[in-house]
Amino acid sequence: MPDRILLYEGKAKIIYATENPEIVLAEFKDDATAFNALKRGTISGKGAINCQISQVLFQYLEQCSIATHWIDCPSLNQMRVKKVKILPLEVVVRNIAAGSLCQQTGLPLGEVLVRPLVEFYYKNDALGDPLLTRDRLLLLKLATENQIDQLKKLALECDRYLSEFFSNCNLTLVDFKLEFGIDGKSQLLLADEISPDTCRLWDNLETDPQNRVMDKDRFRQDLGKVENAYQQVLERVLAQKNPTRNREKK
Amino acid sequence: MPDRILLYEGKAKIIYATENPEIVLAEFKDDATAFNALKRGTISGKGAINCQISQVLFQYLEQCSIATHWIDCPSLNQMRVKKVKILPLEVVVRNIAAGSLCQQTGLPLGEVLVRPLVEFYYKNDALGDPLLTRDRLLLLKLATENQIDQLKKLALECDRYLSEFFSNCNLTLVDFKLEFGIDGKSQLLLADEISPDTCRLWDNLETDPQNRVMDKDRFRQDLGKVENAYQQVLERVLAQKNPTRNREKK
Repeated sequence: MPDRILLYEGKAKIIYATENPEIVLAEFKDDATAFNALKRGTISGKGAINCQISQVLFQYLEQCSIATHWIDCPSLNQMRVKKVKILPLEVVVRNIAAGSLCQQTGLPLGEVLVRPLVEFYYKNDALGDPLLTRDRLLLLKLATENQIDQLKKLALECDRYLSEFFSNCNLTLVDFKLEFGIDGKSQLLLADEISPDTCRLWDNLETDPQNRVMDKDRFRQDLGKVENAYQQVLERVLAQKNPTRNREKK
Repeated sequence: MPDRILLYEGKAKIIYATENPEIVLAEFKDDATAFNALKRGTISGKGAINCQISQVLFQYLEQCSIATHWIDCPSLNQMRVKKVKILPLEVVVRNIAAGSLCQQTGLPLGEVLVRPLVEFYYKNDALGDPLLTRDRLLLLKLATENQIDQLKKLALECDRYLSEFFSNCNLTLVDFKLEFGIDGKSQLLLADEISPDTCRLWDNLETDPQNRVMDKDRFRQDLGKVENAYQQVLERVLAQKNPTRNREKK
């Protein structure tokens, strides 16, 4: 392999340049971080698992007419994606109360929200990724009024499609984080990844509140069997992508 | 004095029942707290100072057609107020970036905001008084859509009137916190207090960033001369209330 030009290294991915200036290569890492990187570790095989799960979900969302940065995967832990300028925002959709929403509002873990809650967080490690009100988004010029409305609409569409997909995998989509970017043609594209690192997923086949956790909360809360959970999500997602193959396997 | 029935003791005030069930007596304390009561102290004379400043400002806002809970002050540190059910919200108006806004957004201290920012915080010590988005306000049923709009409008009106008043005192109203309550007739009334405990006030006659601070930040940041600053604010507010008397004194 020729020397690759590293463009950016984040907590979970490394971005390399490609021959084509409009395309970059995202390499998914096994590194895991939580609590604004105060907790660090490795989830063995995570890079390849998250890359494959993301690929299936990006392909699926493309079929649902959601524009994403995904192009293809040259290897299990590598994804070629359209080069975008990432908006410094985490767009979080919540269907069930969990995580910081519970801590900040006192809502009990597991409370089903009357309607999905779309929230914006400032992607800024130094500030601890704070929650943003609409007025703060505008004040900081992180998005325009139109962009906020567009992001909210897209996030809710993704929620509808992904909730249905995961439901068919016997997984409940509790909440998830999306990132968006703007490509060279000023198009808004869904970017980053969609994986157990960025989604809270509860196993519908489990009732125990710890056993049902199939996402990074296993790492955050030291619940053990982290790799198993990620692998299980991959298997269900692949089976849901290829229901025929799955049926034949059975 | 007959035995008084204590209805509630907060960090800065004690509320007593009166003969009239629609009226309560608020006694302003010298106790000072900051950082969600992690820092505690006493500001000598603060109770009487804040009560008098609040009286002038409530009277002034009443003249500006803002309905408040204020009735009268039977003594320097006591205020008779209409009994209300306090909404568990801190309504904060910001004209200049300071405090948690800077910490959470990275905006530099002193940056003048393009337009006043109205923010809602959940008045909940256990949760650390977290910032609320509009959607979280509705989710937690802390206010209705109509109430949010009404509170925002009222807060901005108070900002306009108070900024002008303080400007005439050679003080800049950087930001301030309001609390509102609902009385027995379902009327929304401005409640609590308006004082150097609840407003950031900068002295227009000072340019030094520490010397200009005339509010609880002197206590929070151990800037010294806390009592002096509070007393100075009271004197300017009283002079502004009675400009003739002030002129005669000169």
